Amino acid sequence: MTGILKTTEKNLMVFSGRAHPALAEEVVAALGTQLVPTQAYEFANSEIYVRFDESVRGCDAFVLQSHTAPINEWIMEHLIMVDALKRASAKRITVVLPFYGYARQDKKHRGREPISARLIADMFKTAGADRLMAVDLHTAQIQGFFDGPVDHLMALPILADHVKEHYGTEDLAVVSPDAGRIKVAEQWSRRLGGAPLAFIHKTRDTTRPNHSVANRVVGEVTGRTCILVDDMIDSGGTICQAADALMADGASSVVVAATHAIFSDPAVERLRDSVAREVIVTNTLPLSDEARALDKVTELSIAPLISQAIRQVFEDGSVTSMFDGNA
Amino acid sequence: MTGILKTTEKNLMVFSGRAHPALAEEVVAALGTQLVPTQAYEFANSEIYVRFDESVRGCDAFVLQSHTAPINEWIMEHLIMVDALKRASAKRITVVLPFYGYARQDKKHRGREPISARLIADMFKTAGADRLMAVDLHTAQIQGFFDGPVDHLMALPILADHVKEHYGTEDLAVVSPDAGRIKVAEQWSRRLGGAPLAFIHKTRDTTRPNHSVANRVVGEVTGRTCILVDDMIDSGGTICQAADALMADGASSVVVAATHAIFSDPAVERLRDSVAREVIVTNTLPLSDEARALDKVTELSIAPLISQAIRQVFEDGSVTSMFDGNA
Amino acid sequence: MTGILKTTEKNLMVFSGRAHPALAEEVVAALGTQLVPTQAYEFANSEIYVRFDESVRGCDAFVLQSHTAPINEWIMEHLIMVDALKRASAKRITVVLPFYGYARQDKKHRGREPISARLIADMFKTAGADRLMAVDLHTAQIQGFFDGPVDHLMALPILADHVKEHYGTEDLAVVSPDAGRIKVAEQWSRRLGGAPLAFIHKTRDTTRPNHSVANRVVGEVTGRTCILVDDMIDSGGTICQAADALMADGASSVVVAATHAIFSDPAVERLRDSVAREVIVTNTLPLSDEARALDKVTELSIAPLISQAIRQVFEDGSVTSMFDGNA
Amino acid sequence: MTGILKTTEKNLMVFSGRAHPALAEEVVAALGTQLVPTQAYEFANSEIYVRFDESVRGCDAFVLQSHTAPINEWIMEHLIMVDALKRASAKRITVVLPFYGYARQDKKHRGREPISARLIADMFKTAGADRLMAVDLHTAQIQGFFDGPVDHLMALPILADHVKEHYGTEDLAVVSPDAGRIKVAEQWSRRLGGAPLAFIHKTRDTTRPNHSVANRVVGEVTGRTCILVDDMIDSGGTICQAADALMADGASSVVVAATHAIFSDPAVERLRDSVAREVIVTNTLPLSDEARALDKVTELSIAPLISQAIRQVFEDGSVTSMFDGNA
Amino acid sequence: MTGILKTTEKNLMVFSGRAHPALAEEVVAALGTQLVPTQAYEFANSEIYVRFDESVRGCDAFVLQSHTAPINEWIMEHLIMVDALKRASAKRITVVLPFYGYARQDKKHRGREPISARLIADMFKTAGADRLMAVDLHTAQIQGFFDGPVDHLMALPILADHVKEHYGTEDLAVVSPDAGRIKVAEQWSRRLGGAPLAFIHKTRDTTRPNHSVANRVVGEVTGRTCILVDDMIDSGGTICQAADALMADGASSVVVAATHAIFSDPAVERLRDSVAREVIVTNTLPLSDEARALDKVTELSIAPLISQAIRQVFEDGSVTSMFDGNA
Amino acid sequence: MTGILKTTEKNLMVFSGRAHPALAEEVVAALGTQLVPTQAYEFANSEIYVRFDESVRGCDAFVLQSHTAPINEWIMEHLIMVDALKRASAKRITVVLPFYGYARQDKKHRGREPISARLIADMFKTAGADRLMAVDLHTAQIQGFFDGPVDHLMALPILADHVKEHYGTEDLAVVSPDAGRIKVAEQWSRRLGGAPLAFIHKTRDTTRPNHSVANRVVGEVTGRTCILVDDMIDSGGTICQAADALMADGASSVVVAATHAIFSDPAVERLRDSVAREVIVTNTLPLSDEARALDKVTELSIAPLISQAIRQVFEDGSVTSMFDGNA
Repeated sequence: MTGILKTTEKNLMVFSGRAHPALAEEVVAALGTQLVPTQAYEFANSEIYVRFDESVRGCDAFVLQSHTAPINEWIMEHLIMVDALKRASAKRITVVLPFYGYARQDKKHRGREPISARLIADMFKTAGADRLMAVDLHTAQIQGFFDGPVDHLMALPILADHVKEHYGTEDLAVVSPDAGRIKVAEQWSRRLGGAPLAFIHKTRDTTRPNHSVANRVVGEVTGRTCILVDDMIDSGGTICQAADALMADGASSVVVAATHAIFSDPAVERLRDSVAREVIVTNTLPLSDEARALDKVTELSIAPLISQAIRQVFEDGSVTSMFDGNA
Repeated sequence: MTGILKTTEKNLMVFSGRAHPALAEEVVAALGTQLVPTQAYEFANSEIYVRFDESVRGCDAFVLQSHTAPINEWIMEHLIMVDALKRASAKRITVVLPFYGYARQDKKHRGREPISARLIADMFKTAGADRLMAVDLHTAQIQGFFDGPVDHLMALPILADHVKEHYGTEDLAVVSPDAGRIKVAEQWSRRLGGAPLAFIHKTRDTTRPNHSVANRVVGEVTGRTCILVDDMIDSGGTICQAADALMADGASSVVVAATHAIFSDPAVERLRDSVAREVIVTNTLPLSDEARALDKVTELSIAPLISQAIRQVFEDGSVTSMFDGNA
Repeated sequence: MTGILKTTEKNLMVFSGRAHPALAEEVVAALGTQLVPTQAYEFANSEIYVRFDESVRGCDAFVLQSHTAPINEWIMEHLIMVDALKRASAKRITVVLPFYGYARQDKKHRGREPISARLIADMFKTAGADRLMAVDLHTAQIQGFFDGPVDHLMALPILADHVKEHYGTEDLAVVSPDAGRIKVAEQWSRRLGGAPLAFIHKTRDTTRPNHSVANRVVGEVTGRTCILVDDMIDSGGTICQAADALMADGASSVVVAATHAIFSDPAVERLRDSVAREVIVTNTLPLSDEARALDKVTELSIAPLISQAIRQVFEDGSVTSMFDGNA
Repeated sequence: MTGILKTTEKNLMVFSGRAHPALAEEVVAALGTQLVPTQAYEFANSEIYVRFDESVRGCDAFVLQSHTAPINEWIMEHLIMVDALKRASAKRITVVLPFYGYARQDKKHRGREPISARLIADMFKTAGADRLMAVDLHTAQIQGFFDGPVDHLMALPILADHVKEHYGTEDLAVVSPDAGRIKVAEQWSRRLGGAPLAFIHKTRDTTRPNHSVANRVVGEVTGRTCILVDDMIDSGGTICQAADALMADGASSVVVAATHAIFSDPAVERLRDSVAREVIVTNTLPLSDEARALDKVTELSIAPLISQAIRQVFEDGSVTSMFDGNA
Repeated sequence: MTGILKTTEKNLMVFSGRAHPALAEEVVAALGTQLVPTQAYEFANSEIYVRFDESVRGCDAFVLQSHTAPINEWIMEHLIMVDALKRASAKRITVVLPFYGYARQDKKHRGREPISARLIADMFKTAGADRLMAVDLHTAQIQGFFDGPVDHLMALPILADHVKEHYGTEDLAVVSPDAGRIKVAEQWSRRLGGAPLAFIHKTRDTTRPNHSVANRVVGEVTGRTCILVDDMIDSGGTICQAADALMADGASSVVVAATHAIFSDPAVERLRDSVAREVIVTNTLPLSDEARALDKVTELSIAPLISQAIRQVFEDGSVTSMFDGNA
Repeated sequence: MTGILKTTEKNLMVFSGRAHPALAEEVVAALGTQLVPTQAYEFANSEIYVRFDESVRGCDAFVLQSHTAPINEWIMEHLIMVDALKRASAKRITVVLPFYGYARQDKKHRGREPISARLIADMFKTAGADRLMAVDLHTAQIQGFFDGPVDHLMALPILADHVKEHYGTEDLAVVSPDAGRIKVAEQWSRRLGGAPLAFIHKTRDTTRPNHSVANRVVGEVTGRTCILVDDMIDSGGTICQAADALMADGASSVVVAATHAIFSDPAVERLRDSVAREVIVTNTLPLSDEARALDKVTELSIAPLISQAIRQVFEDGSVTSMFDGNA
C-alpha cells in the first residue's frame, strides 16, 4: 500500500484562562504535568489577545476557565482560546467549566427573554469545542444544550463527606432554600442516610400586598442541625434569609453547603453576619481574600475531581464510574 | 427596475397527523378554517406514507400531532409530514405539540443515557421545522433544546379556573406529588390566592432495605382540600399514592389536576379506585372511552388555547400577552 | 513539549437494538467478541429507554438494527442508541442497517410526498452517526443521501452461489419482476455466466379500463428455469404474480431470490401457494416461525458478510475489495 | 406598537449565466419581463467575474444556467452568481437547471468514486440556493440530494405530443436503450396509449471474451415504428447502436426522443449516419449549428415549461398540477 | 384552496444595546420612529439580562451596539439581544455594528493566534443574525467572514466633505500612517481631486538594534497640508508620531481624519499635545467628555448614514447606490 | 471490557490532480513516498471522473492541485477528489493549494459582487476538507474564510535567499507595485537588512481625463537595484509598467520577485521585452515551455517547503516553527 505508516500518539495538554489560575495549577499538578505557556492580555480598547507559546498540533486539549466576574470578559477569553486551538490544529478540544456562566438563564422565565445558557453552549460549539466538562450545572438539562458529549461532575461527594465527618453524629435535616431545587436536597438526604427534608417556601405577605415576603419552612426542622444546600451562593440574600427562617422555626443550628461560591457583593458581609454556623463551598470560583478570612467559610478543592475526570477522558476510561453510574 | 412586482400574501394552513384528529378538528373550527386534506396510512411493512391533497406552496403551515401511544409511530408520522411540507415549498413550518414526546428524557439521569428530548427537537429541525409550539413542557428548559422560536403555552389558567369555580370556597392546599415539581405548585398557589404548599417526599423504608417506599407529606394539609397538581398522569401510580398519603395525613379531600392525560395502563383502574374526588385534565392527548366513562374525570379542551396561539403567530401578534407576559 | 504522551488505541464495540438480536449475535460471534450489554425497554406510554451497561468512551461503535415491523419503533430505538453513544463519547459511530427502512420512499413519486429515505439518513446524521453500512439498498442513490461514508454491501454473491450450486446445470433465465429493476438482473446474469434476461411488464388491460392489470413477460423464457430476482419481498403479491406469468409463458420452473425477506402479511401464504419452486432469502430481517416452516424457503445468513465488513472498517482495510471493486 | 409598518411586496427577477442565453431569453419573454443586466467575463487566468447591474435586494431570484460543455466553467459561474445574489440580499434564490450537470455520477458505481451529483447539490446549497428547479433529472432520487424543495419538471408531455401528432397512426413500440431506464419507457407507453415495451440488453459476446458487445433486443418490435426514448443523448453511441439493433430485429423504423441533447463529439455524425428516421430533442442545452443543420433533428422548446413553472413558484401556485400530480 | 389568506406586512423595529444610546437615538429620530423599549442590566455576578417590553413577533429587527470598552461586555449584550429576538420570533435580524469589535484580529499574524474577527461573525450567526451592517471595517475581507449579506457603509464621503470645505483651497497631501493602509489613502486622494500620496514607513534604527523605531516619510509632503487618514484612532501613538514625522519633513500642517474614535488612554492627552491642527472623527463610538472638550476634535455624526442604510434595507432599496456602486 | 482492542496507526497518503503533476511528484519524492495511483479523465461532455486505485480507508490524505488555467476545471477536479476521499473513508483530508484560485475576489470591490474566495473555502469544506494548506495567500485574511485550520506557507525565505545570494552586495531598494501590498514589501525589507521601501502610485492624468494612467514612484530609488516584489504575476502589465517607472526614476536596475507565476497571455512577451533584469518565481503553478525558455526567468522549487509542512502536519510537529513563529 502506498503511504507512510506511523503509530498514532495522543498528547494531553491543559490550558488555562486568566480567571482562576490557582485552580488550573492545582489541576495540572494533580495530573503530573504543567499548564501550556500562554500569552493573554488586553489591548488598550479592552479587546483580548491570546497566543500559545508551544505547538498544540494534534493535542488533546483541555481548556479551563472559571466564569467569575467580570464574566463576559472571561467567557470571551475562553471562546477565543478555543478558536486559537482549533486554528492551530488541536485534535480534540474539551472546554472545562468549573462554573458554567449564564446557567441560570436556562429557559425563558417570561416572553422575549434570551436563553443565554443555550447561547453559551452554541458559541463554544461554534468556536470549536468538541466536548464540555462542567461541575454541578444549575439544571441538568443544560447538558442537552450542547450538541456533543458533556461530562457532568458532581461536588456532592466532596461536600457531603465533609458534612458527615463534622456533623455526622448530630440530628440532621436537609433543607432546600427554594422549592425548585428540592431534587438536589433529596440526593443529599440519601447521601446522609435518609435525613428528613424541608424546603423554604417564599410567600407574599397577603396582609400587606406588594410589600414583603415571608419565608415559610415546609417540613420538620425543630431541634435539628439543618444542612442548607444549594448549587451556588451569589449575593447570599436567599441563603441567609433561609437560615434565619430555619432558626426561627426551631432549628438547633444551620450549616450551609454549596458548590459555587460566587459571593457577589454583599455576600461576604451577609455570611459573616448570618446565623449560619459554617459555610462549605468549593473552589470552582476564586474566593476573595476577605471571604477566605471568614472563619466560618470552608473551601474544599474541586481540583482532584477535575483532574481525575480529565485523566478518565484522556485515557478513554469512565467518568460515570466516578459517581456510581450517575454522571 | 427589472422584474415583476406583486404584493405578498400569506396563507394559514393547518395539518393534522392521525394520532388525535378530534383535537385538530376543534382547533381549525375555532380558527374558522378546515384541515388540509391529507392521505396517511401504513404500508404492509408498517412504513408510513403521507401526501397532501392540495398545493401547500408558500403557506404558513401548522402541523399538529399529539404524541400518544404508539408514540414512535406518531412521532415518525409527524416528522415525515414536516419533510413533505418542506419539499413541497411551505414557506414556514410550525410544529404543534400538544404533548411533547420523550420530554421526560430531558437529561442524563445516569451515565450512557440518551437525551431523547433534545434528539426530538433536533429531528424536527432536520426535517424542516422552523418553530415549535408546545403545551406545558415537562421542564421549561426543553425550550432551549430547539434552535429557533418555541411558543410555550400553559394550561394552568384553564385548569385553575375550573378549580376556583368548583372548590374556591373551600380551604385549599396545593400539593406537588414530587419534590422536583414544586415550582409548578407555587404557580398554582399564586393563582389560587396564596394557598399553602406541600409536597410528597418519597423515602426508602430504612427498616426494610430495598423493599418499599414511604410517601411522606412535607407541609401542612390537615383539613384541607388538596389540589394535587402535576404536568402529566402516566400510569397513575405516583399520583394515586400521593392522594392516599394526603388523606392519611388528614386532608379533607383530594382533587387531581394535570395537563396531560397519558393514562397508560392501569391508570384508569387506579384513578377509578383512588380516593381522589375529581381528576381534571385537558385533551392534549386523546382519552380512551373507558377514561371518559369515569365520572370523576373532567376533560377540559385545550383547543381554544392552541387556536388562539396559532392565530397570534400567523398574524404577528403576541403569544406572551396571552399569559400576562410569562410565556 | 508540555503534556502527557500516550499511544492511541481503538476499541471495536458492537451494539444491537431489539429488532433482530439473532443476527447481531451471529455477527459478534464471527468477530470473536460479544454484544455490549444494553438495557432497552418501553415505558408505559411506549417511549423507549436505552442505556449501555459499560463505558463506551472512545470506542469504535457499530450499532446494528434491522428495520423490521414495527418499523418506526425500531428506527427510533436505533436513533436513540446513536444519541446515547454520542453523548457517552464514543469516538466513531457506524450505523449498520441490514435493511434500510423507508428505502422505497427515495423520491417524490408524486407532488407533495416526502422523501423519507433522505429523512432517515439525515436523522441518523443528526443523532450522531459518522457513517452508515447497509446491505442492498433499494436504489444505490441512497448512498448519496447520507453526508458521509456509506459502505454498501451486496448479498448477490451469497445468493448467486446458492443458485449456481443448485441450478447451475439447468437452462437458466434471469427475470426482473419490474421494469425498474432490470439493472440488478443484469448483474445476476453476468454472475450466472450470461444467462438471458427477461422482465415483467405490467399493463392495464385496455379493454376493461381501471379494472385489471396484465403481467406481460418481455424476453424469452420458454423451457427455462427462471431465477426471479428482486431486492426485497414485501407482501409477495408482485413476485407471485410474476412467477405465474412466467409459468404461463412456458418457463419450466421458477426460483425466487431476494435479499430482504420482509414477508408482510399475506406473504407466507402467497409463497406457500405459489408456483415458485424455491424462495431464497437472507436473514437481514428476522423470519417468522411460519416462514421458516415453509420447506421452499431457504434462509442464507448475511452475518459473515457484515462481520467481515465491520472488521475491514475497524482495521482500515478495504470493503471494496470484498466485492471486486464494486462497493 | 413601536416601528414602521409596510405592506410586503415581492419582485420576480430572472438571471442567466452565459452558457445558453437563447433559452433564458425565451423564458423571460414568456414571462413578460427581461433578464437582469449582468456583467460576466473571465480574467486573464480564466477566473470568472460576475456582477449584477441592478439592485437585487429582496428579490425572488431565478438563476438559469444550462450545464453544457465546458461544464465546469458554467457550473462555477452558476455558483458564483448564487453567491453574489446571496451577498446582495436576494430574498430567495431558485437555481434553475435545465440540464443538471454530473447527474450521471449519482452513486458509487465502484468503490472510491465520488457522488458528484450530491456534491453539486451541496455546493449550490453552500453558495446560497434556497431551492432547485430541474428538467428530467437522470434519476429522480437526485431530488433527495438537495436539502430543500426541488421542482422536477418533465419534458415527456412535450416530446410525446410531437410523437403522437406525427406517428400516432402507426404501429408503435416504446424502446429503452438500456435495462436501467425502462421505467421511463413505461411512462411513454402509458402516454402513447399502451404501446408495447422493449429494451436493449447489452451482453458480452462470450465467444470472444473481453472483446465485443452484442445488443440484444428484449421484447417484440417486428414491423413496428420504435420510439427509442432516453433522458439524454451524449456522444450518441448507445442510441445509434440501439437503433441498428432494432432495425436488425425487424423494426419498420426508429424514432429517437430525448430531453437533453448533449451531442458530444461525434454525436452529430453518428446521428446523421444513423438509421433513425427522426431525432426529437428539447433545447435544455444549446444545439450546435451543425446539429441544427441536420434535417432529422427536431428541436422543441422547453422554455414554455420553465417559464410556467417559474410563474407558479413565484405566485405560490402549483407545479404539481402542471403534470397531473406527478411532479 | 383551504386556509386563511392575508396580505403580508413588515414592521421595522430598531433596538439598541447600552453601549452608545445617543447614536441609536439619533438613528431612530432620523427614521421617524423610536427605539423598542428594552430592559437590560447586570446581575450581581455581572451576567447580563435583556428583555424587550413589546412583542417583536414577525418584525424586521435592526440591533445596534457600538463595540466600545468594556468591549466584551457590549459584544455579549449584543449577542444576547440577538438570541432573545430569534427566540421571540423576529422575522429578520440585522446586526448593526458602527464599530466592529476585534476587527484587527482578522488573520493570524503569528502561529497559534485566534482569528477573533471571524469568531465574532460566526457567533452573531449562531445567535441568530441574518445579516450584518457595519461602518468602515478594518479590512474589507471581513465581509467574507460572515455567511450572509453584509452591508458595508463608508464614512469617507462625510469626512472628506468636511476636509474639502475647510481645507479645499490649501495645497493638500494625503498620508497613510502605515504602509498597509495606503489603499484607503488612495480613495481619499481620488476624492480630494488627485492630491499626492505619502505614507509613513516604520523602520528599526539599525545603529541601535532592538532599541528604537524611526518613522520615515515616503512621498513628498513639503509645504503641504497633510491629511493623515486612518480607519481608527486607538491610543493615538501611531497617528501622533506620524504627525510629528510629517512636520519634521516639512509639512505646513497636519489634519487627522479617522472614522472610529476609540481614544483609549492616553489618546486624549496625546492628541491635545499633538502638532495636529484638527482631528476629525465620527460618532461610531461614544466620545468621552474630555475628548469632546478638546477644541481640535471635530465629531461628525454617522447617524444619517446608518439610518439611510436601514431604510434602504427595509424597503428593498439599494445601499450600493448610496456610494456610487462601491458598497 | 467488551470489545476488540488495537493500537491505532495512521497512514500518510498524497494525492494529486492533473493540473501540475510535476510539483506533486517532487513533493512525494521529498517525503520518500509515491502519489496514490488515481484515474482522472473527462467524459465526452467534459464532466470529470476520478477514482483512486487503492484503498484510502483511514488514511491521512493530502490532496494537491494547483489552480492554474483552466482554473474552474482544476478546482472542480480538486473538489471531486475530496468528495471521493470523504466517501471512501479517509480519516482526515488536507487540501493543499500551492496557488489558491479566486483569491483576488476576497471582498466586494463594488456592490453585487461575489466573494468567490470565501465560496471556494466553503465548497472545500462542503466537499469534506478538514484543513487547508496554502502558499502565500493573496491576503492573509483568507485564512479566516475557512472554518478550520489553515497552514499558511510563505515562499519569502526561498525567494529572498536567492536575492541575497545574487544581489546582496548591491545597493538595494524594495518596491511594491501597488499601494495595497506594501506590507509584503516591508517583510522583504526586514529580510534584506532594512533596505529602503518604495511603492508605485497609480494616478489618473488629470489633464487628459478618462484617458491615461501615470505610475508615480513614491520613495527613493535612484541608483539602486530595485527588488520589485509581489505575490503573483498574472498578465504582467502592472509589474512591467512598474519596472519602467522605476528605471525612469533613476533606478540602476530592476529585479522582479513573485511567488505565483500565473503568466497569463501576454505575460511572457511582456517579461521578455521588459527592462527587468531577472524575474524570480516559484513553481506553485506550472510554467509553460516558452516561459522556461526565457533566460531571465528563474524558477525556484516550492516542493521542499510543501513536503516539509506535510511532514510536520502528519507528525503533529510545528509548521509555525518553519517560519520563526510567523505562520
